[in-house]
This record gives sequence, C-alpha cells and structure tokens, in this order.
Amino acid sequence: MMFTDGDLRALQATLEAEIPITGAIGLRVAGFEAGALMLAAPLAPNINHKDTAFAGSLNAVLTLAGWSMLWLIARRAGIPAKVVIQDSAIRYLRPVAQDFAAECSLPERAELDRFLLMLRRKGRARMELAAEIRADGELKVAFSGRYVVQPS
Amino acid sequence: MMFTDGDLRALQATLEAEIPITGAIGLRVAGFEAGALMLAAPLAPNINHKDTAFAGSLNAVLTLAGWSMLWLIARRAGIPAKVVIQDSAIRYLRPVAQDFAAECSLPERAELDRFLLMLRRKGRARMELAAEIRADGELKVAFSGRYVVQPS
Repeated sequence: MMFTDGDLRALQATLEAEIPITGAIGLRVAGFEAGALMLAAPLAPNINHKDTAFAGSLNAVLTLAGWSMLWLIARRAGIPAKVVIQDSAIRYLRPVAQDFAAECSLPERAELDRFLLMLRRKGRARMELAAEIRADGELKVAFSGRYVVQPS
Repeated sequence: MMFTDGDLRALQATLEAEIPITGAIGLRVAGFEAGALMLAAPLAPNINHKDTAFAGSLNAVLTLAGWSMLWLIARRAGIPAKVVIQDSAIRYLRPVAQDFAAECSLPERAELDRFLLMLRRKGRARMELAAEIRADGELKVAFSGRYVVQPS
C-alpha cells in the first residue's frame, strides 16, 4: 500500500480542520517514505522548562502519527473511517532539543489484510501501532498505541 | 503537606512561562482540595474530529498534573527542583465531551517522606503518580506516569 501526495494533503487538511490544537503545535504532514509516515513539528511552540520539547507535545504528535496511519490506510482502501485511540504507552528516553518528527511505519502486509478484512466484515477493527521520534541517530521517544477504527 | 494559594499561583505562572503550549490548551491550575490537585482545560481549543477532547490534549493535561504535584512538593519542601517525566501509560476509557480537569492526589505520607529523603540525600528521586479525568460521575481517562526530580 502506498500513499499519494493527494492522500497526505487530505490528511493535513483533515488534521487542521478537525483537531485545531495541531495548529498551535505546528504539526505538518512531512511525508511518506520507505513505508514510513512522518509527522513533523517545530521545537519553538512546544518548548518546555528545560528548552527541550514538552512531553505532552511529543505524545500528541506520536498519537497522531498512529492515528494518521490508520486514517490513510482506511482512505486508500476506500472506507472513510473514524479512528479512535484506546490506550497508549510512551517512554521519553532522551530529551528532544530540536525540531522533531514522529515516524510510524506501515504495518506488515498480513496484518494490514487482517485489519481491512475485519473492518469490512465486522465494521470495526483494532490495530496496535508503534511510533517513534529519532534524532542525532538516536531513539529519543518510543510510543505504542492501540486504536479502533469504524467506518464513518 | 498542604499547598497554599500562593503555591498554586506560582505553579500557574511557571506553567505559562516555561511551557507556552499550555496557553493554547487553556490550562488552568484549578485548585487543591481534599489532597488532590486539579488542572482544568476547556473543551473548545482541545476539540477533535468527534467533538470530544483530543487524546493528545488529555494526555498533556494529565502529564502536567503529575509534573505539577512533584513541582509543588519540592517547592513546599524548600527544594527548587526540575521535574522530568520518564514514561507513562494512559487509557482513554470514555470520550470527554465537556470542559475537563485532571486530578492528581498527594502521595501517602510514607511515600512522600521516602521521596524527600532521597531527594535530599541523593540529589535525585523518582516517583510514580496516577492521575485521572472524571466527569458525569465516571472515570473517563486513567493515567500513570513515572517522574524523576532533581534540584535545579
């Protein structure tokens, strides 16, 4: 499964329209390359007391990276869907002292097929997705979230 | 341990000055009652595609509730400290369709004593804190975070 520039522009427009706090975060759909979706944000509006990125902003961008991956998958499959996060866990391993991007990889083909089959058959499907923030060749933040998707 | 109105005003000023995205969230230190600190936020700036509160905003306010509790404890103990979150887990149990508040309870006395002893002796102490968002008599979001505190 591949996402087009049109898909990414539609995602950006949807995030801006439906989750307005993404404007304050400065969230930008930065691309889809080598099977990974990238959501980027500048450090400045997300700065904290240690001049690094605020944990809440990091979590928000990671949460949206998983959310966006499922939104794109459903769109590409021709099933306009609502995506909701059920739970997540996050480890803030190292401070993020620069503009950052959350990366979420497309699930394996078999998992994707199972997910779309469930969505079509049951009208509801779950998926657990990992996402991460890397910089300076290091893993800075590791995230895992469980989402549920229903046709809208 | 009790926090005064002066402590809560200092906390509000610190959040505003050091974590500017709290302004976009509309975060407000709402009070300390019956051993629980309340951080509130309006729904409007934090709305999502389902007209309920965006998960990232809920997580941010809960993350800051635990952070604020430790900041207040260190301040009251006369140890100006830097507080950093290490990891957290969150369950979005029910949608939050109204203005909301995250609640974090003061730790038990024995745990508080152990924490302050470590902070004074080792110059570094950890604490795990739970926080939650309740409304309509229901638990909406359950959060747990591990924090590390060092004198600043």
